[in-house]
Amino acid sequence: MSGPRVGIIGAGQLGRMLALAAYPLGIHCRFLDASADSPGGQLAPIRVAAIDDAEAVAALAREVDVLTFDIENVSAKLLESVVPIVSVRPGPEIVALGQDRLAEKRLFAALGMPTAPHLAIDSAADLATAADRLGWPIVLKARRLGYDGRGQRVVRSHAELTQAWDELGTPPAIAEGWVAFEREVSLIGVRGAQDEIRFYPLTENRHRDGQLDVSIAPYVDDALQAQAESWMSAMLRQYAYRGVLTIEFFLTADGLIANEIAPRVHNSGHWTIEGAETSQFENHLRAIVGLPLGATATRGVVAMKNLIGRMPPREKLLAIGGLHLHDYGKEPRPGRKLGHVTLLDRDRSALTSRLAALEAGLESLQSAGAKSGGA
Amino acid sequence: MSGPRVGIIGAGQLGRMLALAAYPLGIHCRFLDASADSPGGQLAPIRVAAIDDAEAVAALAREVDVLTFDIENVSAKLLESVVPIVSVRPGPEIVALGQDRLAEKRLFAALGMPTAPHLAIDSAADLATAADRLGWPIVLKARRLGYDGRGQRVVRSHAELTQAWDELGTPPAIAEGWVAFEREVSLIGVRGAQDEIRFYPLTENRHRDGQLDVSIAPYVDDALQAQAESWMSAMLRQYAYRGVLTIEFFLTADGLIANEIAPRVHNSGHWTIEGAETSQFENHLRAIVGLPLGATATRGVVAMKNLIGRMPPREKLLAIGGLHLHDYGKEPRPGRKLGHVTLLDRDRSALTSRLAALEAGLESLQSAGAKSGGA
Repeated sequence: MSGPRVGIIGAGQLGRMLALAAYPLGIHCRFLDASADSPGGQLAPIRVAAIDDAEAVAALAREVDVLTFDIENVSAKLLESVVPIVSVRPGPEIVALGQDRLAEKRLFAALGMPTAPHLAIDSAADLATAADRLGWPIVLKARRLGYDGRGQRVVRSHAELTQAWDELGTPPAIAEGWVAFEREVSLIGVRGAQDEIRFYPLTENRHRDGQLDVSIAPYVDDALQAQAESWMSAMLRQYAYRGVLTIEFFLTADGLIANEIAPRVHNSGHWTIEGAETSQFENHLRAIVGLPLGATATRGVVAMKNLIGRMPPREKLLAIGGLHLHDYGKEPRPGRKLGHVTLLDRDRSALTSRLAALEAGLESLQSAGAKSGGA
Repeated sequence: MSGPRVGIIGAGQLGRMLALAAYPLGIHCRFLDASADSPGGQLAPIRVAAIDDAEAVAALAREVDVLTFDIENVSAKLLESVVPIVSVRPGPEIVALGQDRLAEKRLFAALGMPTAPHLAIDSAADLATAADRLGWPIVLKARRLGYDGRGQRVVRSHAELTQAWDELGTPPAIAEGWVAFEREVSLIGVRGAQDEIRFYPLTENRHRDGQLDVSIAPYVDDALQAQAESWMSAMLRQYAYRGVLTIEFFLTADGLIANEIAPRVHNSGHWTIEGAETSQFENHLRAIVGLPLGATATRGVVAMKNLIGRMPPREKLLAIGGLHLHDYGKEPRPGRKLGHVTLLDRDRSALTSRLAALEAGLESLQSAGAKSGGA
């Protein structure tokens, strides 16, 4: 047990893929999660407790050299509380910021990053002014704890807006003006121990029902890449960041609009396992334990498709040439991310065709499954 | 726990890399090994017992859908004994054959594969005739349980031959005539559930002190590739083989000379993790659980170098551009395989230079380590 010890709060699929990347590096991961049979807990030691259990977090902190997390809604206060006994990477400050959509917007503004027009909603009076300032539709988001479309609504009238805020529980919120975007892209970067910064290429993301469905990389646009990297570099340095950071953008006719950050490995970077020389998981680990970063060069063009709600039969998936399967070891449940698949190609149009065939095939497998096994 | 369950006898580095390949496929591995902290036991459930403990093997067999092994010296008799209760893949018959160098030679001959001149040594009288029939030097090998140069000696006189046989414990042995080979190559192939057979390209192997040191792939020679594939196809079909099979060859001026088989994933195929579309580990698992095989196309030219006896500092290794580390989680010990590294390139001469630099660097890291930390 000579390698660095990394504690991971949360043992979902991100933690699982971190642990899978850690073993070949000789890095020892251990988790904190409420479920022993969680995706990560199936393959590394786990301390079973709620992720906001202060004693459990402190106990994990004492067992490891570095503490990280696979879920952005980890308690920033709890992370702060263990800073005296363990290296917490990324740090509590940016975690707290990423959990607050208003603070996030203010950071974007401070760094000169365009962002959606918005205003804070703290009272019914704020709601009344929203349409005048933002027009319709408006995206109402709780300021805290948003994830994968949860805690946010698109509304088209004052009545809908009021109802949406009520249904969210009248939390501190922000109202955002609608951004007419052409596409969504994300940038994943990593900062190491000696201010060493590396970026993956921009990734194009397609959502469905508020969840990431497909990512395709690289999204090639040198000017946008340089712009996004420059913003992220400033952010990484401002927070003396260590590890992988993700920024999601809308791409509009006027360029990039910053949407949100995730201070962790990200679903839109899963393609890096096969598609980049060093995966986002390996580079996050290298960064947080102080090892040199690995190359982020791509191995071609690559598409990642999430498997949500129901797993297609393994033998059908693996009969698809060149498909790489990532099963997260979860029980199926509607809307749940159960795994993903990756396709890699040298040629973009070939990749596009293969992805279209894959998506058509999945639809048919899922509807066949629904017919034969559905309620 | 809906995926196939695979039992693996032996939890060394091969088992570890099988389990790492199994998780993304949703395949559940569990081990049998004498050490809980073995490379495989660190990351999957393990039944701690001797690998030749009949009760433990039977208990593992009852817990899984398919039984395999990561060590070729598993007891073929024990495997045979559990055939009634579990699918054993590859089968006991070829395991037994691979453990007996004389039977192996006879199989090669039966399939028309050239092999080294040899004779069985069962008595001192046999020793006396060896030089007349084979010339010097002679390679004396115990018939059973040879592995990585253990149980074999190169001798140059009758006195040395007699002494070598005594030192081996006068076991049933074979004496082999010296093969003047230009290089050593291996072929790794895999046979699936529906007689689906795929091959990786020939790999060139360099040994040092009787152990594999470096593998470089592909070794490109279409005629040799076709010849080797034809022999292996015959062998795979004859045994209704399921899983990965390796054949090691000497390459001489007269072509390929079969040296030995290994009915399992093989050190000379570790490069497939980064260098092939589907690794030998994933394809072995796919084959034995009855999933379609994955593509074996290479991603360029690739070199694998074993890390033996002492691990160089992790931060020095990972500072080498494009290097992929595989740490087996073992305690260092002279002569022990502790890990391997892989380099991948598009260009063979660039790869050769990078490998030379890596090897020079490792020498210097190891001698520096010996100076500062040696006895």
